[in-house]
Amino acid sequence: MALVVIGGVAAGLSAAARARRVDARLEIVVLEKGPAISYAACGLPYFVEGRVREIGDLIRYTPEYFRKERNIEVRTGARVVAISHPRREVVLESGAKVGYEKLVIATGARGGGAALAGAQLPHVFTLYTLDDAERMRRFLGERRPKSAVVVGAGYIGVEVADALRRNGLRVTILERSAHALLRDDAALTAAVREQLEQHGVELRTGVTVTAIEPDGVAGVECDMVVVAAGFQPNVELAAAAGIEIGRTGAIRTDERMETNLRGVFAAGDCAEVTHLVSGRPTWIPLGTTANKAGRVAGACAAGARERFAGVVGTSIVGIFGMGFATTGFSAAEARAEGFSPVVARIEANSRPRYYQGVKTTVELVADRTTRRLVGGVVIGEDGAAGRINVVATALQARMRVEEFAQLDLAYSPPFAPVWDPILIAAQQLGKELG
Amino acid sequence: MALVVIGGVAAGLSAAARARRVDARLEIVVLEKGPAISYAACGLPYFVEGRVREIGDLIRYTPEYFRKERNIEVRTGARVVAISHPRREVVLESGAKVGYEKLVIATGARGGGAALAGAQLPHVFTLYTLDDAERMRRFLGERRPKSAVVVGAGYIGVEVADALRRNGLRVTILERSAHALLRDDAALTAAVREQLEQHGVELRTGVTVTAIEPDGVAGVECDMVVVAAGFQPNVELAAAAGIEIGRTGAIRTDERMETNLRGVFAAGDCAEVTHLVSGRPTWIPLGTTANKAGRVAGACAAGARERFAGVVGTSIVGIFGMGFATTGFSAAEARAEGFSPVVARIEANSRPRYYQGVKTTVELVADRTTRRLVGGVVIGEDGAAGRINVVATALQARMRVEEFAQLDLAYSPPFAPVWDPILIAAQQLGKELG
Repeated sequence: MALVVIGGVAAGLSAAARARRVDARLEIVVLEKGPAISYAACGLPYFVEGRVREIGDLIRYTPEYFRKERNIEVRTGARVVAISHPRREVVLESGAKVGYEKLVIATGARGGGAALAGAQLPHVFTLYTLDDAERMRRFLGERRPKSAVVVGAGYIGVEVADALRRNGLRVTILERSAHALLRDDAALTAAVREQLEQHGVELRTGVTVTAIEPDGVAGVECDMVVVAAGFQPNVELAAAAGIEIGRTGAIRTDERMETNLRGVFAAGDCAEVTHLVSGRPTWIPLGTTANKAGRVAGACAAGARERFAGVVGTSIVGIFGMGFATTGFSAAEARAEGFSPVVARIEANSRPRYYQGVKTTVELVADRTTRRLVGGVVIGEDGAAGRINVVATALQARMRVEEFAQLDLAYSPPFAPVWDPILIAAQQLGKELG
Repeated sequence: MALVVIGGVAAGLSAAARARRVDARLEIVVLEKGPAISYAACGLPYFVEGRVREIGDLIRYTPEYFRKERNIEVRTGARVVAISHPRREVVLESGAKVGYEKLVIATGARGGGAALAGAQLPHVFTLYTLDDAERMRRFLGERRPKSAVVVGAGYIGVEVADALRRNGLRVTILERSAHALLRDDAALTAAVREQLEQHGVELRTGVTVTAIEPDGVAGVECDMVVVAAGFQPNVELAAAAGIEIGRTGAIRTDERMETNLRGVFAAGDCAEVTHLVSGRPTWIPLGTTANKAGRVAGACAAGARERFAGVVGTSIVGIFGMGFATTGFSAAEARAEGFSPVVARIEANSRPRYYQGVKTTVELVADRTTRRLVGGVVIGEDGAAGRINVVATALQARMRVEEFAQLDLAYSPPFAPVWDPILIAAQQLGKELG
C-alpha cells in the first residue's frame, strides 16, 4: 500500500517520518508544492534580522536525506490540485496522478496579504517562505529603506518589526483588532506596546488596512510594507474533496487526526485540534502542534493506534530580548468560553535581587467554580519560557490553584528566587478566589 | 493566645508571617538563637565568591521590620534549651520561660563538621551562617590560601568549591559516598565530575574523612578546609519533649505540619514531608520546602485549615555556569522505592542550532508498570531550571509518559527548539517502555 502526504514542511514530514518508523516497508510519497522542504519557517525573522547569516541554515533536511535515510520519496514543485477519494488518487498541477491508500493532508496555511489592493507592489512583502525572506533581505540591502509598515501584530508581525528595527528602520505596526499576539488581553497588549515603544516601534491597534499605496499604508508613509495578517488554513483542496471543515475554518479531525473520509488524515496549520482547557476544537497554527499532530497522523495512517490529545495554546515570542509567553485563555477569552474567570497579576524578580534578578510579570487566570487554572501570561527577560511551560503543564494536568501554589520548583540563586514568581502569582490567585 | 516560633530563618518566619495574616490579633513571638534572622543561607557561596559584595545584601528582613510591619516580636540570641509541653512553655538558655498555646518548631539543621577531629583548627570552615561566610571571606583576603579541600559533594559543597576556585584556589572535593549532589545516580555524578574537572576542581568519591590535620585532609594537602557534609536535622529539643521523630531522623508531622503533640507544629529543615512520588515521608532540607511547609504550619497554628501536600524532590545547582537540575528519583533510587524503572537519556539543543542552542542533557525515569514518570535530570547552561520544573510539575500531577510527550510547550527560536529536549527524552522513553 502507499501513503501519500500533501505538504513537506512540519506536519507532513513528521507524518512521513513517523509512518516509516511504524511500517518499514510502506511506500511513502511526500508532495510539496514549493521548491524546498523541512525549513524552519519560525527562523525567517532572524534571517531578516541578520543573526542567521545563511538561508541554508534554516533548512534541516533535504529531499535526498529523506530518500536515502528514510526511504521516503519527496517531490518538490509538486502542487496537488485535486483529491479524488473515490479513486484514491491526487491530481498534480502537471496533470499527473498519484494513487494512495492512505492520505495525510498537511497543506498548511497562508497569509491574507495577496487579497489586499496593492499587494503586488514591489515594496510589499510577506514572510512565510525562504524565498520571501531572501527577497526581503535583498530589498533591505539594495534599496536601504528607511521606514516600514508591518500589517498585523501577531507573532510574525512583531518578530519582523523587531528584525527591521534592528536593521535601522522606523517601524509602525498596524493591527486591525484591539490586541496584539492574537490574544484578547488588554494588559498583554499594553505590555507589548510598551516594549515596542521603548525600542522605537509604534503599535497602532484598531486600524483596518484595505489597500497598500506606493508610498504608505493607511496614512503612514513608508518605504516598505510587510503583510503579516489574515493567516488562514489551506482547506480548499480538502473541502472540494468532501472533507468536513470545522467551525474554526480548519479541517475537522478526530483524536487520531483522521478526517470524515476514512483513511484520510489531516494535521498541521490546515487542521483543527482539541483545546484541552475548553474541550472544544480550536485552530492555533504553530509548528509545535504541527509536529506532534503530524506524528500521530503518520502513525495512524501507517496502522498504529495513537491519539493526539490536544493543546493548551502555549506560545512565546521575543520582542527586543523580552519574552512574552502565554498559555490557555486570557480572562476575556475564558469568559467567552463560559468560565467564570478570576485573575491575579504580580511582578516579582526572576532571581534573588542579590543575584541580578530582573522584573518578571506573571498573570494567572482561574475558573471561580472549579478553582482550576485556565490560563497564564509570563513576561520577562529571564526564564519566561520555563515559567509558562510550568503553567502549560498544569493546564494539561487540570490542576487547581491550591495544588499549583505548592509546586516543588527548582531553587538556587543563579536560576530562581526561593518563591518563584509563578508561585507568588498562585498565592495571590488563591487569595482572590477566597 | 500566644504562638511561639522556635527559629527565625525560612520556615519559622514563613510560619509567623502567615499566622499573622490568618489572625491579626494573635500574639506571636519568634525565638532565634543566632544574631540574625531572615537571611538567604543559599546566597552564602556567592558572598564567598565575591559576586555578592555586602553580607547585608543577604539579609531580607530585620527584627524591627517584623515588629513594626507585622506586629511580630522577634528575639535574637534567644536559644531555646527545653520545651515543656505539659506547662506549655519553652525555656531559654538564660533560664527565662516563654509560655505558648501553639508552638512551631523550626530549628533547622546543622552540618556534621563539629564532630570531626581537627574541626576547631583555624583553617577549618563551615558555611551555614552569615558569620561563617564573613569568617571565610576574611580568611581568603588575609591569608591568601592557595588550596582548599571541601568535604562533601552536596549542593553546598560544590557551590563553595566553585566559589573558591573562582578565587584562584586549587580545590579538591572529598565525598564519602559514591555520588555527588546527594543522588544515587552514576550518570549525574559523572557529569558533575566532568564539569568540575573542566574547571580545575577535582572530585574524589568514596573518601571517608575522619580527621582534619593542620596541613591537609585524607592525604590531600591544603591551606583551608570547608566541611559541607553530615547535614542533620536539629531534633534533640523536640525529641526530649516527647515529639515523635520519623524514620528519616527528622520530626514527623501530618499534612497540617502538626506533630504528635496537639498544638505543636514543625516545619523546615528539622521536619519530614511527604514525597509525592513514593507517598512516603522524606527529609529533603531545602529553602523552598521550608517556606511552603512553614506557611502551612503557621496557618494551622493560627486556626486555619490548610495542608502541605508534599514535595517531589526538585533541586538545581549551578557549577561554573552549568545547571544541574534533578527531580523525583534516579533509576537506582526508584528501584529502591519499589518501582520498576525504565530510563531514557538524550542530548539535544536548548534552542535551534541557527539560534545558538547549547547542549542539554535530559534523563527521564518512568515506572514500567504504571508508565508514570518518577524522576528526571536536566543538565545545561540554558533553561535547565525551566525544564526540570516541567518534569516536577508532571510528577506532582502523576503524569504518564504518553501525556508528558505531548505537552504543549512554548516554542520560538530565541527560547527553545520546536521539539524541546524534554519532549525528545519523553519520546525516547516511550520507545523504551514499548
